[in-house]
Amino acid sequence: MAVELKNLTKRSENYSQWYNELVVKADLAELSAVRGCMVIKPYGYAIWEKMQHQLDTMFKETGHVNAYFPLLIPKSFFSREAEHVAGFAKECAVVTHHRLKNAPDGSGVIVDPDAKLEEELIIRPTSETIIWNTYKNWINSYRDLPILCNQWANVMRWEMRTRLFLRTSEFLWQEGHTAHATSQEAEEEATRILHLYADFAEQYMAMPVVKGVKTENERFAGALETYTIEAMMQDGKALQSGTSHFLGQNFAKAFDVQFVNKENKMEYVWATSWGVSTRLMGALVMTHSDDNGLVLPPHLAPIQVVIVPIYKNAEMLQRIDAKANGIVSRLKAMGISVKYDNADNKRPGFKFADYELKGVPVRLVIGGRDLENNTVEVMRRDTLEKETRTCDGIEPYVGELLEAIQSNIYQKALAYRNAHICKVDSYDEFKANIEEGGFIMAHWDGTTETEERIKEETKATIRCIPYENFFDDDKTPGQCMVTGKPSARRVVFARAY
Amino acid sequence: MAVELKNLTKRSENYSQWYNELVVKADLAELSAVRGCMVIKPYGYAIWEKMQHQLDTMFKETGHVNAYFPLLIPKSFFSREAEHVAGFAKECAVVTHHRLKNAPDGSGVIVDPDAKLEEELIIRPTSETIIWNTYKNWINSYRDLPILCNQWANVMRWEMRTRLFLRTSEFLWQEGHTAHATSQEAEEEATRILHLYADFAEQYMAMPVVKGVKTENERFAGALETYTIEAMMQDGKALQSGTSHFLGQNFAKAFDVQFVNKENKMEYVWATSWGVSTRLMGALVMTHSDDNGLVLPPHLAPIQVVIVPIYKNAEMLQRIDAKANGIVSRLKAMGISVKYDNADNKRPGFKFADYELKGVPVRLVIGGRDLENNTVEVMRRDTLEKETRTCDGIEPYVGELLEAIQSNIYQKALAYRNAHICKVDSYDEFKANIEEGGFIMAHWDGTTETEERIKEETKATIRCIPYENFFDDDKTPGQCMVTGKPSARRVVFARAY
Repeated sequence: MAVELKNLTKRSENYSQWYNELVVKADLAELSAVRGCMVIKPYGYAIWEKMQHQLDTMFKETGHVNAYFPLLIPKSFFSREAEHVAGFAKECAVVTHHRLKNAPDGSGVIVDPDAKLEEELIIRPTSETIIWNTYKNWINSYRDLPILCNQWANVMRWEMRTRLFLRTSEFLWQEGHTAHATSQEAEEEATRILHLYADFAEQYMAMPVVKGVKTENERFAGALETYTIEAMMQDGKALQSGTSHFLGQNFAKAFDVQFVNKENKMEYVWATSWGVSTRLMGALVMTHSDDNGLVLPPHLAPIQVVIVPIYKNAEMLQRIDAKANGIVSRLKAMGISVKYDNADNKRPGFKFADYELKGVPVRLVIGGRDLENNTVEVMRRDTLEKETRTCDGIEPYVGELLEAIQSNIYQKALAYRNAHICKVDSYDEFKANIEEGGFIMAHWDGTTETEERIKEETKATIRCIPYENFFDDDKTPGQCMVTGKPSARRVVFARAY
Repeated sequence: MAVELKNLTKRSENYSQWYNELVVKADLAELSAVRGCMVIKPYGYAIWEKMQHQLDTMFKETGHVNAYFPLLIPKSFFSREAEHVAGFAKECAVVTHHRLKNAPDGSGVIVDPDAKLEEELIIRPTSETIIWNTYKNWINSYRDLPILCNQWANVMRWEMRTRLFLRTSEFLWQEGHTAHATSQEAEEEATRILHLYADFAEQYMAMPVVKGVKTENERFAGALETYTIEAMMQDGKALQSGTSHFLGQNFAKAFDVQFVNKENKMEYVWATSWGVSTRLMGALVMTHSDDNGLVLPPHLAPIQVVIVPIYKNAEMLQRIDAKANGIVSRLKAMGISVKYDNADNKRPGFKFADYELKGVPVRLVIGGRDLENNTVEVMRRDTLEKETRTCDGIEPYVGELLEAIQSNIYQKALAYRNAHICKVDSYDEFKANIEEGGFIMAHWDGTTETEERIKEETKATIRCIPYENFFDDDKTPGQCMVTGKPSARRVVFARAY
């Protein structure tokens, strides 16, 4: 492992390769035998579970409940909402048969041609269609509203070029699907979730995000408005980390979901949908990690503290065990997840490298001299700083240190991002700057045509129209950098994952 | 709702219809637009989440970790393990294409014939094959063992006759897949999980189970031994509620997973797999519920206590609110899940019927006279008994009452089951008794031939060879009731779901 660690490509050499290697070496995930599908390994899944747990808690605190809808969707459902199918339901897995049988020649199994389905079924790429087909039966009156459902599920989009966590054919996510009596209530829900996602990203992932609205061109297929959180990776590229959609009445109309409103009139139901996925795992890795491996925010680290003994003999180990076990139980009582690794089949140096690679936020080492002096060596993963401290009061100190690390990596990521946002006023300047990475605030004439041209010529897209101001004149009208036509305000451009 | 409730078929009239209606009326689940697939509604899903949470805790306490493996499995994998494919991988959903396109006539979308997969992919009916194909890369030496992975996932088996929760094409489950260095260790794991499942069923679902071993004929395809927990429903039929398999080296051989053992020799890895599914929801409903609706064990009830006010005017409601909110916060502080339903758009009688239907274990009612007397009416769902008590100390009383209900419904189910186990010594007696339902302890000659004949003639199967004794002579050798051949011991027969 120590040897493998040394082989980790440096970010400065090849950022993309660094990421690919790190995800595998740190035991987060690996490719599977099925094209574009990943295996999420136990260590990676433990981080995802912590994300899930926190998000689920936040959803429930805001009145949402979980439910489960079918994996398979009848093909005809995709034809119902015209924009949705145009933008969405193309590259997806199609189930056509429901039986295998033994090959006549004994060579294995074949698909039974007699078991062809009357109508093909699609593995959900997202569930608006099947859910709104279901809501039709749940909603009669305004009294049945709002419906605030979330689903934790796997979905599938047949991607041609895949990367672990960032873009895989199958991924895990949550998808919220809410139904409301008024447009205003639905819009409020969509923005409530936007802020919830941003809070989660910032407070748990320690990842600063830009909140904003997507342009028409970048909207979710079938949405009237798409809200997004955009994060900046260490290579300056943007990563869309979560989206929340105000769907208007489009899906209600497509699936004929009407209700009797308070004025006793029939009206179509108003909708939102919103989701974050295992893509967040990729964002987490790329926001904080370094050339030594993962750097995990303490709020999401499966192991927050590891304790490693250094000993010369069994007697010394026994004394260290006693000391360490005391610390372990006091840390656990504080709700801190701690591992004491006194396994005798690995050397301390190997363990150090391994836990660095895995991004464990705090490492404590206890050796012979520490026993004599009642001390412990404390290392924090984010800065790799070491210090020797007395064991007295070490537990509250570690508790504070975890919070300090959480705060520090957030501030570091924020400083990086803010240092990589610039504003430009000419397209030439834009083309030069976009090569350096980062976010660019620039004027745009508001047309899809210009947006597409910029994308084609520079690979940059409009990430969002942000709420926040990065420069004093962000919201001052100006001229489009490409066409010179009037622009109401600057928007965020970047190359993106 | 109150009207609908009255329409609930009685168990004595038609048990099967009672179940089907109850699952829908109590908002647990409903059929979807996709044949054989269900929608698990929020109230049903909340119960499933409680089951998941408890099982997950128990898995982690016994050293297991979660991971995630792909939904789709290459068709060829199913040919690798001969018995597995013979017994398993036939009725399943087959993905043959990966793209839709617009129909030339504008009528919607069609499957793109150019997007045919080279090898068909199967939606997992269970994951042994893809997981063992993955483990191959994880295991080199005995130091890599054991691997104790669990996965929470959806799976799909194309069932022709489906019933909500009991048998659906798609269902949710957990599947544990463990890898071990020795046969003994794997067998110990398989039985450890059997006992874990039984503890969960008894302590949380309040459902007594018979633990035992399956006959060869009833074993999981590819297993050397299948352990099972079998529960008795209120119609006397058995419901297999969880199974744990000792797989020997079958899957390791099929996927060539070898390791260097402590003697430095190559050896195939030993395996187990085990699972419980949303079928447990069906078992929960059928074990305890009655003609008034669900009866939920307090340990799994999403709402453990509901408080309903009865008031004549706003002033009175305000006073009841104050009183109820105090009780709510004190119950919550005890970790009890409580709902105060003072919604003004439903009458108390409607609420009573609804919460009865939903199986809320304890109902508190506060009316005008209760305000005067500082009392509250307490109703327990299991017996429907009501009593009026002083509000002083009501919270600890409710806490104890929840435990009493948990224990009472377990004891009631146990008494029912024990009253419906009999032993018979002749096949005629067997045929007469099996019509009455219940479990029958009888001698059997140990052959699949006899087992199949009994099944054909009576629809009864051998549920298991139980650990427990129900009669003094259970383990005394005797003669097969059908063939008269020697039998080592009695086994459990029943008709089953």
